[in-house]
Amino acid sequence: MAVDRLETQLAFILETEKLKQVFRQTLLLGDRRPENDAEHSWHLSLMAVLLVEHASAEVDLLKVLKMLLIHDVVEIDAGDTFAYDEVANLDKEEREQKAADRLFWLLPTDQAGVMRALWDEFELRQSPEARYAAALDRLQPLLLNFHGEGAAWRKHGIKKEQVLARNEHIGEGAPALWTYARQMIDEAVELGYLAA
Amino acid sequence: MAVDRLETQLAFILETEKLKQVFRQTLLLGDRRPENDAEHSWHLSLMAVLLVEHASAEVDLLKVLKMLLIHDVVEIDAGDTFAYDEVANLDKEEREQKAADRLFWLLPTDQAGVMRALWDEFELRQSPEARYAAALDRLQPLLLNFHGEGAAWRKHGIKKEQVLARNEHIGEGAPALWTYARQMIDEAVELGYLAA
Repeated sequence: MAVDRLETQLAFILETEKLKQVFRQTLLLGDRRPENDAEHSWHLSLMAVLLVEHASAEVDLLKVLKMLLIHDVVEIDAGDTFAYDEVANLDKEEREQKAADRLFWLLPTDQAGVMRALWDEFELRQSPEARYAAALDRLQPLLLNFHGEGAAWRKHGIKKEQVLARNEHIGEGAPALWTYARQMIDEAVELGYLAA
Repeated sequence: MAVDRLETQLAFILETEKLKQVFRQTLLLGDRRPENDAEHSWHLSLMAVLLVEHASAEVDLLKVLKMLLIHDVVEIDAGDTFAYDEVANLDKEEREQKAADRLFWLLPTDQAGVMRALWDEFELRQSPEARYAAALDRLQPLLLNFHGEGAAWRKHGIKKEQVLARNEHIGEGAPALWTYARQMIDEAVELGYLAA
């Protein structure tokens, strides 16, 4: 019984190994290859620990970390949807809901329910934890894009107004981070990393 | 002042980007390339959330996660030291202490102290949290190695007794995980993934 439970848990853990093969549009600063979701999730989680004083409300940091560690698991089935791809974003929610229905339920039922609820909460962005987690999920690619001279922005011809519209909810979860991000976006335009 | 603090935090966060370029001996199950420390740290952290009921004592899960998220940061300077490389392991501690002295102190002083203390605690393996975290740090490569048909073990001619000696402290942090790991090691020998 206990062994069956452990094996079920490990089967899910091995399934999530696939997140190391789901690539994003963001390029790494080192070798300029696309970042994968596992690396992204680790970086966000570390940011959550170090930047928690900037959250707009008191947050349960453990809950934030659980959310961030699983927030992209659905992309194992649904793939990464580029933030500025309007067509792909039309059915993103449907694809991700289907993925969540399959993936989280590989876990023992009690854990599946908890993880699914955390993912739903993250997606809804209504609790302080979800807002703070979502703010980091937007800030991290902005940082890499800026310090990588806007390579992903330039490749896709992204404009400043798109970046502002896409990321402004950083301000809901962490106002100081949004102030910082807006300055970075302005500087990106000045430096020619991002179209005006 | 507040902006300076945020900039100091972000400078550390950007420095840790380099962990995505520190490669381990473990191969990924997908494309069989070496795993990097960022992916490894994410996977461990997710495992910590899902397997906490198997810890040998009550643990503060938030503390475990903080430890796991930063446990390999020193390898940015010190590099990854292969578990079974006896020569490289001779000066591993010295190299990693020096790296910790540089890296954590990039953070604001209060956070540097906290993170450095967490890393020291992880290395000492004397608290329940450190023992559980260390157990996962050993179990995760075992899992990938076993499910990858022992590629890293075979490449380096590793023997069962080395794997047992190297990993037996999993039992201190999570006895059920060590029972499971020992069965996996026996099976690895039977399947020819690991030398007897």
